Amino acid sequence: MSKAVFYHAGCPVCVDAEQTVLSYLDASKVQTEVVHLGTARNRIEEAEKAGVKSVPALVINGSVYHINFGASLDDVKNG
Amino acid sequence: MSKAVFYHAGCPVCVDAEQTVLSYLDASKVQTEVVHLGTARNRIEEAEKAGVKSVPALVINGSVYHINFGASLDDVKNG
Repeated sequence: MSKAVFYHAGCPVCVDAEQTVLSYLDASKVQTEVVHLGTARNRIEEAEKAGVKSVPALVINGSVYHINFGASLDDVKNG
Repeated sequence: MSKAVFYHAGCPVCVDAEQTVLSYLDASKVQTEVVHLGTARNRIEEAEKAGVKSVPALVINGSVYHINFGASLDDVKNG
C-alpha cells in the first residue's frame, strides 16, 4: 500500500483540490493522510524536507505534486 | 462516472506526473483520457477553454488542476 500525504493550509484553492483529487484516489492502492500546515505547524519542516514548495501539494512515494497554487510555504510559515 | 482529462506535452515533468497520479486514480469512479498536446495540437483550443494554463494538468468535472509545472501552453503552441 502506497502512502499519500496531502499538505494544505485551509485556503480555498487547497480545499477545492482536496475534495476533488482525494475523492478520486483509489483507496485500495493508496492510503491518504491530510495535513493542515496552518494548524499542524510542527509538520512544516517535514513538508519542506519532502520538497513541498507550496500548498496544496500531494506527496506520493517520495514524489511531490504541487497542485495549482494556493500559498507558498513561506506564507504558511509567516501566516 | 466522472471524466478526467490529463493534458500533457511529453516533457519529463508531465510523464512523471502522468504515471504516478493516474495510477492511483480510482478507475471505478473516474474515466481517464490522456491527451498529448504536442501531437494532438487540435486539442489545444479545447484545453485553453477548459482553463488549462500549463501542462501537466488534470481536468476533472470542469475543474482544472495544474500539477507542478512542465511547460506553459504558450510554449506548447509555439513548440
